[in-house]
Amino acid sequence: MNTTNNRSAASRPVDLKNIKISDRYWQSYVDLVNNTILPYQWEALNDRVPDAEPSYCIRNFRIAARLETGDFSGFVFQDTDLYKWLEAVGYSLANKPNGDLEKLADEAVELLASAQLEDGYLNTYFTIRNPQQRWTNLTDCHEMYSAGHLIEAAVAYYHGTGKTKLLDVARRVADHIDLRFGPGTDQIQGYDGHQEIELALVKLYEATGEPRYLNLACFLIDERGKEPYFFHQEWEARGRTSYWNPGVVQSKPPAPEYHQAHKPVREQAEAVGHAVRAVYMYTAMADLALHNNDTELLEACRRLWSNMVDKQMYVTGSIGSTHHGEAFTFDYDLPNDTNYSETCASIGMIFFARRMLQIEPKGEYADVMERSLYNTVTAGIGLDGKHYFYVNPMEVWPAASSGNPGKHHIKATRQKWYGCACCPPNAARLLVSAGQYVYTTNSDTLYTHLYIGNETDLELSGRNVRIRLESGLPWNGNASLEIANADGSGSFTLALRVPSWSPATVFRVNGAQREPIIRDGYAYFTGDWRSGDRIDVQFDMTPRRIYAHPQVRANAGRVALQRGPFVYCFEETDNGSPLASLALPENAELTSAWEETLGGIFVIEAEGVRTEAPGEESAAPLYRTSPPVRTPTRLRAVPYTMWGNREHGEMQVWIRED
Amino acid sequence: MNTTNNRSAASRPVDLKNIKISDRYWQSYVDLVNNTILPYQWEALNDRVPDAEPSYCIRNFRIAARLETGDFSGFVFQDTDLYKWLEAVGYSLANKPNGDLEKLADEAVELLASAQLEDGYLNTYFTIRNPQQRWTNLTDCHEMYSAGHLIEAAVAYYHGTGKTKLLDVARRVADHIDLRFGPGTDQIQGYDGHQEIELALVKLYEATGEPRYLNLACFLIDERGKEPYFFHQEWEARGRTSYWNPGVVQSKPPAPEYHQAHKPVREQAEAVGHAVRAVYMYTAMADLALHNNDTELLEACRRLWSNMVDKQMYVTGSIGSTHHGEAFTFDYDLPNDTNYSETCASIGMIFFARRMLQIEPKGEYADVMERSLYNTVTAGIGLDGKHYFYVNPMEVWPAASSGNPGKHHIKATRQKWYGCACCPPNAARLLVSAGQYVYTTNSDTLYTHLYIGNETDLELSGRNVRIRLESGLPWNGNASLEIANADGSGSFTLALRVPSWSPATVFRVNGAQREPIIRDGYAYFTGDWRSGDRIDVQFDMTPRRIYAHPQVRANAGRVALQRGPFVYCFEETDNGSPLASLALPENAELTSAWEETLGGIFVIEAEGVRTEAPGEESAAPLYRTSPPVRTPTRLRAVPYTMWGNREHGEMQVWIRED
Repeated sequence: MNTTNNRSAASRPVDLKNIKISDRYWQSYVDLVNNTILPYQWEALNDRVPDAEPSYCIRNFRIAARLETGDFSGFVFQDTDLYKWLEAVGYSLANKPNGDLEKLADEAVELLASAQLEDGYLNTYFTIRNPQQRWTNLTDCHEMYSAGHLIEAAVAYYHGTGKTKLLDVARRVADHIDLRFGPGTDQIQGYDGHQEIELALVKLYEATGEPRYLNLACFLIDERGKEPYFFHQEWEARGRTSYWNPGVVQSKPPAPEYHQAHKPVREQAEAVGHAVRAVYMYTAMADLALHNNDTELLEACRRLWSNMVDKQMYVTGSIGSTHHGEAFTFDYDLPNDTNYSETCASIGMIFFARRMLQIEPKGEYADVMERSLYNTVTAGIGLDGKHYFYVNPMEVWPAASSGNPGKHHIKATRQKWYGCACCPPNAARLLVSAGQYVYTTNSDTLYTHLYIGNETDLELSGRNVRIRLESGLPWNGNASLEIANADGSGSFTLALRVPSWSPATVFRVNGAQREPIIRDGYAYFTGDWRSGDRIDVQFDMTPRRIYAHPQVRANAGRVALQRGPFVYCFEETDNGSPLASLALPENAELTSAWEETLGGIFVIEAEGVRTEAPGEESAAPLYRTSPPVRTPTRLRAVPYTMWGNREHGEMQVWIRED
Repeated sequence: MNTTNNRSAASRPVDLKNIKISDRYWQSYVDLVNNTILPYQWEALNDRVPDAEPSYCIRNFRIAARLETGDFSGFVFQDTDLYKWLEAVGYSLANKPNGDLEKLADEAVELLASAQLEDGYLNTYFTIRNPQQRWTNLTDCHEMYSAGHLIEAAVAYYHGTGKTKLLDVARRVADHIDLRFGPGTDQIQGYDGHQEIELALVKLYEATGEPRYLNLACFLIDERGKEPYFFHQEWEARGRTSYWNPGVVQSKPPAPEYHQAHKPVREQAEAVGHAVRAVYMYTAMADLALHNNDTELLEACRRLWSNMVDKQMYVTGSIGSTHHGEAFTFDYDLPNDTNYSETCASIGMIFFARRMLQIEPKGEYADVMERSLYNTVTAGIGLDGKHYFYVNPMEVWPAASSGNPGKHHIKATRQKWYGCACCPPNAARLLVSAGQYVYTTNSDTLYTHLYIGNETDLELSGRNVRIRLESGLPWNGNASLEIANADGSGSFTLALRVPSWSPATVFRVNGAQREPIIRDGYAYFTGDWRSGDRIDVQFDMTPRRIYAHPQVRANAGRVALQRGPFVYCFEETDNGSPLASLALPENAELTSAWEETLGGIFVIEAEGVRTEAPGEESAAPLYRTSPPVRTPTRLRAVPYTMWGNREHGEMQVWIRED
């Protein structure tokens, strides 16, 4: 079996039009997006959700287009809420036509197109409020960030519908920026405070074939971090002010670390600053490493990946240890109850992981992609599709969320909407494009990264192949990859990921057990596959204890539970309060059983211990010399991603080990 | 034995001139204050400490007195640094004459007197910067707070030296305020944002006999919390601005809870807001309850004491669970690594506790007074007397103090000085007036609250008595109270506190073991005592494990160690890193031994357990399924109050119990 060449050849995701998700677990999310989230978010964008924070997003476009009078409202990047919604609609329409939805979206496209200026510029904040201050505060004002989301929406909507109107708007925006920014003496040698456009420009290049867009992405990536710092120069030029503190002359310039602009990206080795900006940038770096065969950039990607994932990632696949700047802190600093772990940041990790998988199919990337997707991203959305988490803590004490200012960012219940509503539409666009993360493929190999059931048409070794993936995950461990149809003949390779959480995975080819070559977390099966051939996989779904590195002080003496891709948590509604009084004995047997709660889940149960004050609990003294009394108690854990969907209460991922 | 009448009669502290501290442990602190801290802080006030944050304090007075030109610098309450220093000097001179120190202080008094205005007003910030805005922003500007510290200094300096110059200055300030504030139609019905003057006015009343000062204190206390809120009225009157954000019109008025002005103090039941303001106010409330025999106010004091001590106090006798507003949070919210636990707040607790002891001698007050004094207040000062903690955490990871913004307030080493230098001189004034906390006495009973060796002259039952207290505390458990001299005859009572940490205390009277009546934590001995009579006490110094209430989630599964009055902690220099990897087995024997480190201490040692990642530690994965390896290790704890006096490193009070 020769897979060396296959491995070195970059792979690409399959077109969403060619993959039909048919998965018991994910179908419910896709349906939720199509039937609930997209309509609901449209209402939110139009400020029609009662008791929710208003978006002002559509209203801003109407004002910018002179269809309505009034002032701009909301965040300076409010436009992106519509762009992310449009992007999600694009993916949705690629999967499944929906005339009503497309009509709404077309109207939105008309609206935003009418807000575009003659020179291609499109940003409602600057158009309404400060037309003369365009491109004077990239540090704070997200102008390129907003343009990036427009471009992503345009590419998705073009792929989903074949319509070019939005793509044309996006190209004019990109052309405008390409004119204003670059190495020329009449251009600005700068870049945005919030990375996003870099990865979007790569998508625009892929969609249009126009190399200027790829080159602009390269310019923005490589300009970043050069000294003297662009953010300092423009800060001086505008009189040392910040958008966030109008009228105040600041004593200190913006901190470049926050924007990952403290050193050239090729020299960066540690994930620092605002987590979402970081992973969006890493994604673009991986894109450029892939397109330009840029090994130096690839090395930087590998370093940053490793630092992020091996030193600064929560067990649920989330990042950002502090809400101060929604940022990374430092290696092994992973506090459970003050973390940020923004839903958007995990979405960005998934973007980054998929690019790295395209370059080098290694299980470590897919493991993290799956961890973030199954645990954090879906945790960001309530089971009703109408409530969202922005922050995804490992531990919640509702009284502290309201009573301790250092924990005000830790919401104990999902919110209807957010003034800064980046996460809800971001999760929507990811869920409805999940098909882009299941596989990547090159000319003769299909890599299966995620076991999400689907039927997919693609070409392998010049043959038209229809793949049928069936999967019991995340609940049960049986999956099969079947050649539903294949014309012609010739050898190609099916590479199946062996998840790190399944130490005893069994493979059968056409019923016969096989010991495939496993390299970097993938099992490789090469053959002249014919219609009806199938590979069956049986994963090890034993509930497992997870321990953290001893440098993670917050988890010393604690254990987390995982079953399949799901990390579990303990909720007050199942286990009483305080959860901190519970401990899991080292030798307690973990059992899992199916229950029809929360839409149907496997719970994990164990005989545990509860430590209580002797005597009447509430009257016990604050400090005492008598040790706590231990009583046996049945512990019950549910998948973290579903927490907060029942009664309001405490939640804890890491439980004390007894 | 009839002590009922004795108990109901309020007691008072002894005059500092009549108590000579001669205590192995405390003498070193008193010497440190006299020989190091007072001279060093004088240099700091004069901006002559290299590499320390400048104080500007003396310079401000010189500018206000027109002896120098320039602008005001520092915090709006910067004057109080000099006042607290003068107060400490007053106590020091009462104990021990010192011509050089007195000369410096007299010069400082001359200086500040020359900055006083014709109408009695004295505040360098307003005199230099904003003379026309006096008394327009009591919420933020600490005008009465500063005046209060001046008054306290004046009373102490008068008692210490007999000189009246500073007392006259203070009376003129108090008279000025008494004219401006009160129930009259030409007066302001207001009060200060930072309580302090209330307790100071009681001292001024006690020193001068002038009832107007007591009445003014009553007015300020009872006006507080009435609706409409004074802070809201003056905020409206000055155009909704704050001192802290000049030029910005605020959308929200000041939060009255922060200043304990959310409801009338008599109705308050929970400790809320800024912790130092709270305890200064509670102290004045207890003072007024005492002087006015005000049972309603006393009930409020008892409620607030109980909430603070039984629900919101750290094991080291510190308060303030969050640095946001240096404030209380809510019941049982006692995080170890993000707390504030300001040194000044523990000083204020000691003030409050002493007043409550005067009203009702109960061991619970003295226990807390001792806990705060021996653990937090002295922790605030380095053994060299030149470095200070403002914040006193239960757990320190130096990398997090610098790398996690939510922990920036947790300093891993004592600082030379602070821009807001409230704590260093506050600790100095308390340490040098420790004699005011050892005893309280009424006509026929001497209450011994703290076992700090001394000789004291006082009158009991009309007899002149000299008491000699010898004490091995905090290190060894032998103490004796001897009647060094007593004229005449007649019965009086010696009431000795039985610390809650000593469950097996043995008493001997003139060598014979006795079982005294013990009530509310005091052992009562009544007799016609003669010269040479003595009561020997033997405390139980067994090291003890302390457990927290199960609602204190941060300490679930953890234990702290205490021996005598000292709470212990684990330092990296003794135990390696990470400290979180250490655990103390439930049944491990605790041994204590004298060592000549840190000036001589008893360390506590035990056979513990270290949990480590299997394999090479630094290369271990972030998450793994193999349980940590446990290795035996010798644990070593030192008194918390001395932490941070050796190598820089981690510190932890609460250790995991295994």
